[in-house]
Amino acid sequence: MPNPDIVLGPNQYGKAEVRVVRVYRDTEVHTIKDLNVTSLLRGNFDDTFLTGDNTTVLTTDAQKNTIHSFAKEKGISSPEEFLLELGRHFTAMDHVTGGRWETEAFNWERIQVPGPDGAPAGHNHSFVRNKDDVRTAALTVEDGVEYVLGGFKDLTVLKSTGSEFHGYPKDRYTTLPETTDRIMATDITSRWLFRPGAEGVDYDAVYARTKQIIMEQFAQVHSLSLQQTLYAAGEAVLEEFEEIEDIRFVMPNNHHYLVDLERFGVENNNEVFEAGVLPYGFMNASVTRVGAEPKPKAWEWIGGFC
Amino acid sequence: MPNPDIVLGPNQYGKAEVRVVRVYRDTEVHTIKDLNVTSLLRGNFDDTFLTGDNTTVLTTDAQKNTIHSFAKEKGISSPEEFLLELGRHFTAMDHVTGGRWETEAFNWERIQVPGPDGAPAGHNHSFVRNKDDVRTAALTVEDGVEYVLGGFKDLTVLKSTGSEFHGYPKDRYTTLPETTDRIMATDITSRWLFRPGAEGVDYDAVYARTKQIIMEQFAQVHSLSLQQTLYAAGEAVLEEFEEIEDIRFVMPNNHHYLVDLERFGVENNNEVFEAGVLPYGFMNASVTRVGAEPKPKAWEWIGGFC
Amino acid sequence: MPNPDIVLGPNQYGKAEVRVVRVYRDTEVHTIKDLNVTSLLRGNFDDTFLTGDNTTVLTTDAQKNTIHSFAKEKGISSPEEFLLELGRHFTAMDHVTGGRWETEAFNWERIQVPGPDGAPAGHNHSFVRNKDDVRTAALTVEDGVEYVLGGFKDLTVLKSTGSEFHGYPKDRYTTLPETTDRIMATDITSRWLFRPGAEGVDYDAVYARTKQIIMEQFAQVHSLSLQQTLYAAGEAVLEEFEEIEDIRFVMPNNHHYLVDLERFGVENNNEVFEAGVLPYGFMNASVTRVGAEPKPKAWEWIGGFC
Amino acid sequence: MPNPDIVLGPNQYGKAEVRVVRVYRDTEVHTIKDLNVTSLLRGNFDDTFLTGDNTTVLTTDAQKNTIHSFAKEKGISSPEEFLLELGRHFTAMDHVTGGRWETEAFNWERIQVPGPDGAPAGHNHSFVRNKDDVRTAALTVEDGVEYVLGGFKDLTVLKSTGSEFHGYPKDRYTTLPETTDRIMATDITSRWLFRPGAEGVDYDAVYARTKQIIMEQFAQVHSLSLQQTLYAAGEAVLEEFEEIEDIRFVMPNNHHYLVDLERFGVENNNEVFEAGVLPYGFMNASVTRVGAEPKPKAWEWIGGFC
Repeated sequence: MPNPDIVLGPNQYGKAEVRVVRVYRDTEVHTIKDLNVTSLLRGNFDDTFLTGDNTTVLTTDAQKNTIHSFAKEKGISSPEEFLLELGRHFTAMDHVTGGRWETEAFNWERIQVPGPDGAPAGHNHSFVRNKDDVRTAALTVEDGVEYVLGGFKDLTVLKSTGSEFHGYPKDRYTTLPETTDRIMATDITSRWLFRPGAEGVDYDAVYARTKQIIMEQFAQVHSLSLQQTLYAAGEAVLEEFEEIEDIRFVMPNNHHYLVDLERFGVENNNEVFEAGVLPYGFMNASVTRVGAEPKPKAWEWIGGFC
Repeated sequence: MPNPDIVLGPNQYGKAEVRVVRVYRDTEVHTIKDLNVTSLLRGNFDDTFLTGDNTTVLTTDAQKNTIHSFAKEKGISSPEEFLLELGRHFTAMDHVTGGRWETEAFNWERIQVPGPDGAPAGHNHSFVRNKDDVRTAALTVEDGVEYVLGGFKDLTVLKSTGSEFHGYPKDRYTTLPETTDRIMATDITSRWLFRPGAEGVDYDAVYARTKQIIMEQFAQVHSLSLQQTLYAAGEAVLEEFEEIEDIRFVMPNNHHYLVDLERFGVENNNEVFEAGVLPYGFMNASVTRVGAEPKPKAWEWIGGFC
Repeated sequence: MPNPDIVLGPNQYGKAEVRVVRVYRDTEVHTIKDLNVTSLLRGNFDDTFLTGDNTTVLTTDAQKNTIHSFAKEKGISSPEEFLLELGRHFTAMDHVTGGRWETEAFNWERIQVPGPDGAPAGHNHSFVRNKDDVRTAALTVEDGVEYVLGGFKDLTVLKSTGSEFHGYPKDRYTTLPETTDRIMATDITSRWLFRPGAEGVDYDAVYARTKQIIMEQFAQVHSLSLQQTLYAAGEAVLEEFEEIEDIRFVMPNNHHYLVDLERFGVENNNEVFEAGVLPYGFMNASVTRVGAEPKPKAWEWIGGFC
Repeated sequence: MPNPDIVLGPNQYGKAEVRVVRVYRDTEVHTIKDLNVTSLLRGNFDDTFLTGDNTTVLTTDAQKNTIHSFAKEKGISSPEEFLLELGRHFTAMDHVTGGRWETEAFNWERIQVPGPDGAPAGHNHSFVRNKDDVRTAALTVEDGVEYVLGGFKDLTVLKSTGSEFHGYPKDRYTTLPETTDRIMATDITSRWLFRPGAEGVDYDAVYARTKQIIMEQFAQVHSLSLQQTLYAAGEAVLEEFEEIEDIRFVMPNNHHYLVDLERFGVENNNEVFEAGVLPYGFMNASVTRVGAEPKPKAWEWIGGFC
């Protein structure tokens, strides 16, 4: 018998990491879409928690089947649009009031082979995976609002100069020397929130261009802190895409430690570094528009706990 | 020049995954504490984002040094108390208004060796790591409130019977056969929120006992759904520890597929299964107390984006 | 047309990481075996390489099916004996002259629940995975000889004293201070070769006892080098099991760096260490019997390249 | 007291995964080399195993320091040449008779930014990591011979047609349907052995071109088996580079399973696949020159056990 003082709190359930590869083969020139999709439903599922009555519980297996079938029925135009197809399908069901749909999208490029004229040309149906980053998308539906996040993760960048770090406060535990020339390196993970209701968005173009803008800012900003670089990147993205309301970053500071070679009678003029693993600096930050109403529903649950 | 229509949103920064091992060696019988600590500060750091002025930015290196030194100065009684020491230290600083401190705590047991009487006895200073799960703790400080989360992750359990799944709705994409006897397996990750202000908590005892309660419920509940098992576990924990206000779970459903051996003329009476990898069922849920005020600050940012 | 100056060299093929869980449920007290099996055939397969003629190529899918079906047909008494069943089955086929079969075996323990008398008792059908190490087994068949390797991997141990390191030569690049008291820590991976033709071996008992012997030696040897500890462990195993001919170890030296707290006015008497990640010391070594003929076939190909 | 019937077998020791980043900054246009180096010495080290006498044991810390210092003293022209510098240095020492040196080399490309004319141009000192594959190199020195292996790992490729698989034998456990059109996908890991004593090798050019040749063969061979594709790739490499004597591959067959959509009334004409994870087909094979003497020393120990 359930304890009357205890109650079910926030919850969602579904199928995670459904791997689906869609081949478009209408002509000899094939294209492929390669996704890793997660579907999580929210709604009226208390009975299964309290008594094991599954009357309202669409199986996670059916969610997987839907993902597979929609890859053909609806097609995969962009990761974001595919998630919207899924979200609208599931939230039209009884008992489902909202949910979260996420995906990774793996990037594939054509293998270059000698073309008829000897110049490199993309092969019709052979591909090599570009692993520089992994594209991501997420959709949250709550109270009838569709919150769409584009993004990518783990784009690894490094600049060998053009980065300073000094002027910080010194407490009892501060031993770091100030520097006007260091390596700055990070793995950029970013997600951006499209303004709910934005129409006609070219999601693929936004992904490609946003990644490029961020890399350009990383390269071109003479940096006094990783924070400054991050903010400049976010600002540049918001200036270019009015349909983006908020852009967030999760970025480690991948430390590179100058090695003391003087012990061996060898000069080291910022030439030899040990790449650190743990610990690393770590930063979470968002850049947003003045006056934009916070939309916490768009960002919740990514870690699985809220 | 900053764009006046664009503004810094929520942010935090610090040092992640500081590995600290503390040996207590006051007698010949040593004890060890092994943590992987992350410190993230929140406060008035806008200048470093906007102009690279680091006047208010305590270095992440100093945060690391503090963690190391506090392991001796304050000692490590429990992961939760160690985080509280760190949180109180940093939030006492100018410009720091709050933050998040997290840790993994690795479990070590004494190596058993033959004792003086030949019976196994724990060695004085030699240990083997128990990897069944990893203990976790997290502290968030916001508006002067300390939110303490205990927890553990990736405790892998399986029951070879005593689990059914049926009675679910059938849509066009439902193909899963109903069953009254299946393997149920999961990796349990759980975090629990201590009531802010709770005093005299024995954090180590809560961790050990909560893990045991959850395993017992997993074993003893005849399960009609993984949700039912999860809820029973959460309810049992809340019933035992009045200082816990909310307990949350992140649990995959590690599918085990019955292999079709009839194709080879071999009977398979729930004896041979293929353990699946991807995709997996996935569930996030919380069990909480009636009337408890939601405390979103306690749970935010775990994924790094909100 | 094949180039006559070029030829196929050593090769093997098959199915890797077949996950099979076998439940024994003859009584209410279930037992489970959980393996991750790889099957690799060697023989006369040149045609498929040279022309794509698959006449001699047993599909890897059939190898997988055999593993699944043998879990019922032959049962899984021990990992080593299961591999022997597979090896004998496949090498009896035309075109198959030998091969390699490997497995991981995951350890499961009964969940402890209150028994009828209130004392903890193992549950009938609910298990928790013991992840301290992963058991391994490998079988190579070449020229009609069956080479059986038992083993385990990644047993993580640490001793907080009882380890010295000094007396080493000093070259231009030697800066490490000598020490008479350091933390010694490693992840023990070991494989042992059973004398081909050894009969009546209790493989499960050998695994359990060998792991225990190695831990005892780690604990009890006052160590002047990790090499010394490794050798003592190997010697003790060979002394106990005459059916083991050769035992090998792959062991990192998981460095723990004493943290300089004097900078903060804090004493650190071997109490606070930073656990390192990369780089690590690394050791490969074998302990064998005088006069044993080397058996390279037993050890080849584990890395996949020879 | 050592047991006279037991003896030390093959062994090597050293420092693993030394991360070194070398910046060349002689002009404003920087270049970087990013390695993960392992050094393992072989020689007369019995005493440390038997008695803990370290008289002949160069510390692994000194090996690390040497790697760091050589990055400046000798420079890093190519991974292979850097390993040769290390190998010659260490084998010139007393007690060191041979060893193995390995490295991963991470690929970095210039970030493209708008140049003076608006066209994309590589930035002077800002880089993005190309993660499509990781370059590898290994050097084994035994009996005065230097065996140099070039290589790369985990280049992920897929072709959406142009792959058949049929004509294989059918045993009792064969259920796989034959196909004339399937997805073929793999992660290519390859190592090639340079003829000992080969002079004037342009290791960087060989790496770049070998990878390209392998991709071209993957794309252009109409494949009747993954083995056929592998052999064609190896043959093409050996035909182009006379200084390569033997090339080896470790390749999974990354299965893509055609999803049954007919259950939902949806056609699936080789358009929707589920990408499998475990199990996978697995192949190890070498392509070599007629008459080349086998060189097992070049290939041993990669897995750590022989």
